[in-house]
Amino acid sequence: MSFVVPTDATSWIEVEPESDFPIQNLPFGIAEIGGSFELATRVGETVVLLGPLARAGLITWDEERLMGSKPTMLQVSAEELSSLRMELFAQLSSEKPFDALLKAQCLLPASMVQMAVPKVTAFIDFYSGINHASNVGRMFRPDQPPLLPNYRHLPVGYNGRASSVIISDQPVVRPKGQTKGADDTAPTYGPTKELDFELEMGFYLGEGTEIGDTVPIEEAESKMIGFVLVNDWSARDVQRWEYQPLGPFLAKSFATSISPWIVTLDALSPFRKQGPAQDPAVLPHLKQHGPEHFDIKLEVLLQTAKASKPQVISRTNALELYWSAAQQLAHQASNGTPLEAGDLYASGTISGTEPDAFGSMLELTWRGTKPIVIEETGEERKFLEDGDRLTFRGYCEGPEYRVGFGEVTAEIMPAQ
Amino acid sequence: MSFVVPTDATSWIEVEPESDFPIQNLPFGIAEIGGSFELATRVGETVVLLGPLARAGLITWDEERLMGSKPTMLQVSAEELSSLRMELFAQLSSEKPFDALLKAQCLLPASMVQMAVPKVTAFIDFYSGINHASNVGRMFRPDQPPLLPNYRHLPVGYNGRASSVIISDQPVVRPKGQTKGADDTAPTYGPTKELDFELEMGFYLGEGTEIGDTVPIEEAESKMIGFVLVNDWSARDVQRWEYQPLGPFLAKSFATSISPWIVTLDALSPFRKQGPAQDPAVLPHLKQHGPEHFDIKLEVLLQTAKASKPQVISRTNALELYWSAAQQLAHQASNGTPLEAGDLYASGTISGTEPDAFGSMLELTWRGTKPIVIEETGEERKFLEDGDRLTFRGYCEGPEYRVGFGEVTAEIMPAQ
Repeated sequence: MSFVVPTDATSWIEVEPESDFPIQNLPFGIAEIGGSFELATRVGETVVLLGPLARAGLITWDEERLMGSKPTMLQVSAEELSSLRMELFAQLSSEKPFDALLKAQCLLPASMVQMAVPKVTAFIDFYSGINHASNVGRMFRPDQPPLLPNYRHLPVGYNGRASSVIISDQPVVRPKGQTKGADDTAPTYGPTKELDFELEMGFYLGEGTEIGDTVPIEEAESKMIGFVLVNDWSARDVQRWEYQPLGPFLAKSFATSISPWIVTLDALSPFRKQGPAQDPAVLPHLKQHGPEHFDIKLEVLLQTAKASKPQVISRTNALELYWSAAQQLAHQASNGTPLEAGDLYASGTISGTEPDAFGSMLELTWRGTKPIVIEETGEERKFLEDGDRLTFRGYCEGPEYRVGFGEVTAEIMPAQ
Repeated sequence: MSFVVPTDATSWIEVEPESDFPIQNLPFGIAEIGGSFELATRVGETVVLLGPLARAGLITWDEERLMGSKPTMLQVSAEELSSLRMELFAQLSSEKPFDALLKAQCLLPASMVQMAVPKVTAFIDFYSGINHASNVGRMFRPDQPPLLPNYRHLPVGYNGRASSVIISDQPVVRPKGQTKGADDTAPTYGPTKELDFELEMGFYLGEGTEIGDTVPIEEAESKMIGFVLVNDWSARDVQRWEYQPLGPFLAKSFATSISPWIVTLDALSPFRKQGPAQDPAVLPHLKQHGPEHFDIKLEVLLQTAKASKPQVISRTNALELYWSAAQQLAHQASNGTPLEAGDLYASGTISGTEPDAFGSMLELTWRGTKPIVIEETGEERKFLEDGDRLTFRGYCEGPEYRVGFGEVTAEIMPAQ
């Protein structure tokens, strides 16, 4: 079951032409209102709380999932999600808007609403950006092929830390960690000197599985609520010293920022495209059955404390991902591990093939050898400095409208 | 604050001399009674439910944490935990036992009680068994020093999967996964051929921290409820193919078994010992302030389907761990990641120095080159086979009494 809003539909709520949130989007997010949490959607610059609509009988949704407990708020099947968006569409596109009382109860200007992270039961990070993986290989294993032998056979991934997933606009404090330079005789503990971002997309699960269950790839998308932008902050000097032999740990677990609106697969479906050709052919349980990638334009913007405006430092597209979300989830479930509602799966860093389309400072500055120049101020950046603000934007561009994610942004604060 | 039960104390509940659960232990666990969960302790072969005691006013504990919601059941500070054990001790060691009605409400034979996994918010696995890490180095990097350069400077660890932590006695289904032999031209997907166990200890947190907080090592133990036995099941063939460059993923996430009783640090404190000398000296934030290791004897037993009894295949001790639990937690918190009540931290595989003291089949059979012989049946084992039952036992042996963990056990079921 799916529900795609007609291309020519409009809302009685005002929507600017370039908005990421036309009536065709209808994403889900959690608003923090007076210290408690409420499920919400967004049209244009307006946040629409779902609680008052349900209590007025205009949408069908049980009270427990509207307010209060974040853990259960987004436990939804694909079917429930489609039918909820259908009801929301009926109300928000109707020619007869809500009465004034209901408007006062459920409509809020987006700029006034503090959004919250949906409950993240687990955070899993893949490595599906093939250009990123190749760049890392070229930098750190220059005498070997850029991609390891397993790369085109399975979506490489690892478990991250769920507790440090934070919402857009929450500052990121420069983490401390243990590092050892190549010429140092002993390691030291202190603030990272190589704070980096990673440009990623992530998807949330609305439904889980029982232990022992696998998920056929053609059913994988039905477990997903939708996508968000993900910044998987990284401390490169910490990572270099700690990651052998069991992978990244504290270099990544201090913070992961996400955009607050979960954009559903139904809203993204007009922008489905075929991903990169997969050669060699993948095993049957990972074989795609349709265009399971999405044409999402991505931008990275950096604003230093001295600058008056942000500068675009990278432009790329989610189509650069080698493995699709459906393939990632089918792989994750292939050993029978129980999936859970609230699992958040990030894609891995998305880089294009050209140097101005890379998805991390590590790649953009090629390990610090080619600093980024801030045109307005003449400053240089090898990695991120205190006071820098880093922002991702993402959107699908159609002939009639955009469906977008808004942004995920954070300012870097000095180490504590 | 701490509460250590006097050495000569006894309970009016019967306790066999060799029991792991004398009145000096008073561990915590979650019993599943008629489909709902209840906080419990254990004395000898008797499970004691805490709910009826609280309702009778004999212990001070709020209702919400006694029954119902697993997530909040073990959110406790070290202080609350000590005072609860003090109250339990007063009731269970008293010369005046409960009246018959209360006995009927709160005492159950352990053999009749189904125990449940406490809510695991996150599962983190360290690599602190130095003999295991050295053995793996010798096997897989024979031309290099057995330990990587970072090993003695920080407790190497990685994030695992919390959703697949299961309770002792729940069967483990042989997982499927993607593998590729050295001579294969392409990988295949099917049941693992190299199913292994890993002998570990784990500790649970009762309290968390805010993002940005670090935890001084001298305060680390105060966040812990106590320890359990952990079997971190592993599929070695899956691991070999998938783990580069980001570490173990599906090779470990299909199941992790734990023993049901959380043995508190107060109960273990008479068995504190100095761990291995740490040379080179560790950085100040990881420096230990006392004997933070525990003298816990560990045994691994294997019973095949054809055998009538289990055979001990390894004997070792938790003192073989290079890094203590306090060091592991101080390291985890050193980048400001928020800790959460319910975090479960496993030690890494505990191996002794001798071949009969290794903590995995990989090491005991030296990659399958020296199969284990089951004396009763003459069968050989390189890795685990369907129908095998694998059990860990662990206990501290004092002159007067034992404090133990009982066991963690599981039978291997065929792949689905």
